[in-house]
Amino acid sequence: MPDSVAVSRETGTDPRPWFQVHLFVCTNRRPDGHRRGSCAARGSEPLRDYMKARAKELGIPGIRVNSAGCLDRCEFGPVMVIYPEGIWYRAETREDIDEILQTHVIGHGRVHRLMLTEADLPPGKG
Amino acid sequence: MPDSVAVSRETGTDPRPWFQVHLFVCTNRRPDGHRRGSCAARGSEPLRDYMKARAKELGIPGIRVNSAGCLDRCEFGPVMVIYPEGIWYRAETREDIDEILQTHVIGHGRVHRLMLTEADLPPGKG
Repeated sequence: MPDSVAVSRETGTDPRPWFQVHLFVCTNRRPDGHRRGSCAARGSEPLRDYMKARAKELGIPGIRVNSAGCLDRCEFGPVMVIYPEGIWYRAETREDIDEILQTHVIGHGRVHRLMLTEADLPPGKG
Repeated sequence: MPDSVAVSRETGTDPRPWFQVHLFVCTNRRPDGHRRGSCAARGSEPLRDYMKARAKELGIPGIRVNSAGCLDRCEFGPVMVIYPEGIWYRAETREDIDEILQTHVIGHGRVHRLMLTEADLPPGKG
């Protein structure tokens, strides 16, 4: 079950979170053949579009699905990160997106089969 | 002084944060004359470039300065949000960027003169 971790805040003066679930999908595109590849080249843009549409259809309150520039975990893409939890996922299909929305966002759980781990390092940093 | 707030995490199984400071600068651009304006039209792109360069020069560990699509607080732009804290800033000058890096990121404080508040609502939602 979810527990909690301390995040630096100024009690009483920090505004409440503007978005309850702020999700960033990497849509960076590199030229074909680049050694690291890129999330857009791996199909992230239509997946982002699908995620935005599904979040709206499901009426999830306080969610924002954003595009982001290169998140620097290209090798494991298409990647996304969900804040404030800071959990990273690789999503390759609409079914992956559905599972992240249902299990993580709505159910406050984790989709372990899609989560990036600390072992998912860029080349040369392993 | 900073205090803490609970963020949903799964103790023992969630990976540690990949970036200690994950900063998203809106670089969305709307056509000139759009009623909401846009962060890029207000100059966010060179400010993002400056912030990336300064963060590198200062050697701040674990920071990532990313571009993001529309963060939907256009009227108050150029806007950025810093996670995991979820603090939003409006930055219009290089001096604003320097102050956010020094006071918030390095000093773990807040730049109150630049922070967006809960009263900074989009039109029609006030």
